[in-house]
Amino acid sequence: MHILVIGAAGMIGRKFAESLVRSPLPGAPALSRLTLADVVAPAVPDGLSTPCETMTCDLTQPGAAERLINGQPDIILHLAAIVSGEAEADFDKGYAVNLDGTRSLFEAIRHQGLRNGWKPRVVFASSNAVFGGDFPDIIPDDYILTPQTSYGTQKAIGELLLADYRRRGIFDGIGLRLPTICVRPGKPNRAASGFFSGIIREPLVGLEAILPVPETTRHWMTSPRSAVQFLRHAATLDLDRLGERPNLSMPALSVTVGEQIEALRRIAGDKAVALIRHAPDEAVARIVAGWARGFDPQRALSLGFTTEQSFDAIIQAHIEDELDGHIA
Amino acid sequence: MHILVIGAAGMIGRKFAESLVRSPLPGAPALSRLTLADVVAPAVPDGLSTPCETMTCDLTQPGAAERLINGQPDIILHLAAIVSGEAEADFDKGYAVNLDGTRSLFEAIRHQGLRNGWKPRVVFASSNAVFGGDFPDIIPDDYILTPQTSYGTQKAIGELLLADYRRRGIFDGIGLRLPTICVRPGKPNRAASGFFSGIIREPLVGLEAILPVPETTRHWMTSPRSAVQFLRHAATLDLDRLGERPNLSMPALSVTVGEQIEALRRIAGDKAVALIRHAPDEAVARIVAGWARGFDPQRALSLGFTTEQSFDAIIQAHIEDELDGHIA
Repeated sequence: MHILVIGAAGMIGRKFAESLVRSPLPGAPALSRLTLADVVAPAVPDGLSTPCETMTCDLTQPGAAERLINGQPDIILHLAAIVSGEAEADFDKGYAVNLDGTRSLFEAIRHQGLRNGWKPRVVFASSNAVFGGDFPDIIPDDYILTPQTSYGTQKAIGELLLADYRRRGIFDGIGLRLPTICVRPGKPNRAASGFFSGIIREPLVGLEAILPVPETTRHWMTSPRSAVQFLRHAATLDLDRLGERPNLSMPALSVTVGEQIEALRRIAGDKAVALIRHAPDEAVARIVAGWARGFDPQRALSLGFTTEQSFDAIIQAHIEDELDGHIA
Repeated sequence: MHILVIGAAGMIGRKFAESLVRSPLPGAPALSRLTLADVVAPAVPDGLSTPCETMTCDLTQPGAAERLINGQPDIILHLAAIVSGEAEADFDKGYAVNLDGTRSLFEAIRHQGLRNGWKPRVVFASSNAVFGGDFPDIIPDDYILTPQTSYGTQKAIGELLLADYRRRGIFDGIGLRLPTICVRPGKPNRAASGFFSGIIREPLVGLEAILPVPETTRHWMTSPRSAVQFLRHAATLDLDRLGERPNLSMPALSVTVGEQIEALRRIAGDKAVALIRHAPDEAVARIVAGWARGFDPQRALSLGFTTEQSFDAIIQAHIEDELDGHIA
């Protein structure tokens, strides 16, 4: 089996590729080839025994989509995107990559399939940003998509295209609305959602973290480990079970910042919590107030997607995966 | 005030233009100029005193969108589309007109606005075909859009683009999900929905009509007169009242074919009803079974959109508007 990961240099793409070293996809033919593509050169995971090629490729360039699918992979993970903040700041770039890039990929698959009947599986990374406006505390699976960012708009359009191309038999496919990923490893960044990870990640290594919102702020989060597991499950799931609606809200935990902090206290003690500095930021609070607080992801749960049962487990996953089991 | 109608040769576009002869838009500046555009030359309405130009224009051609908006109209009615059946039969043409054509128009507006601050109002004709799959009998305003046709997919994408361009202040805009229009004037056509009109229109002039579905079939219909009224209301409504969600399901009547027939009997008697020939067609019945049966269009109603209160009134509107008040 040949898997292509587009956006393989990102955190989730990298972790998905690494997961293939540790354990094969259950119930799937053995991996015979792995292609990792991104706008910057992706790393080949340590210890991978399967033939692996890396591609540096910009989906907005003419011919790029055709080059990407040239090896006719069985499974295509499409994770590449301009992130929310940049898609909002740069209108043209966001639409070029997130809409036109996705459509170029889908069109390249269609034209290749018309030539020789090739029909891969496409796993599309969508986002909770497809929801927006005045939504309920718990968003059901059949709730309307009214994004309030260009990024969310582009992801919602990607979902619609995926569903139509699948319905027409051009490829099989599934779209996963990913929750906010926490604890995101690496350095603090300027994303408005960064503090959800920062207030855990930094204190665990003895560093101060800034909290710009009240502790009552509620959000929908899952671990990088669960996000990788969503992709692995989507890569092998019987997609006939999706019926007419191939885009799914993924499970996660609806937790408040206060609950995050209490979990941190249980695991790392008061000295870790003391490193969180409250610095209210109206601008960040306003952005975060527009984000989904919770979902009732019945369909994804019934199809076997799972997540952590407590925020403690999310912190433990971070300690195991990123800190070799040790905390400061 | 300058109004541009794109798709002006279609039934609704033509009737909208004709309505401007009979009565000005209430609460709006006087009409100073009317531009009617379509892929075939639109007719100038009889009796129009306002300067009117017609354009033959294919939105899929380079430069067409720029040419269309060259006069910087205050209001743009975008009604142009490849219809459902053709968009399903011709994948490329449907996406080229319904998605790329719409986006070209929106982009032309954006680029002109960047040059000189021009910011028109766009009224976009969407469709109930944005809904699909396993939906409830009565679809609420916050129900998910999961179209099961390429046409419905393209209309849903148009809605998303409209909302994002509006949110960014590129233009003001509103999207109207039009119900099935009944009684549609003219000759019988091959549209799967054609019989909803045919079983009324044909018997009223002494001709036989075919009914391919059971009388229990329920559907969501409004008159051409109401559809024109939706556009007129959308052209002048205070769009700030739309909040963050500018796309609306329009009001209509949820009626069964049996109720249509009983209304016909009340108005035109048993001899008209006797002209309806039952000829069950499994293929048509299957298509129709995938269409929405009813809506709860609270938002549109609260914003002042109205429709007929009975199917009798829909038939009477047809007799007045198309038959000069006379029936066979």
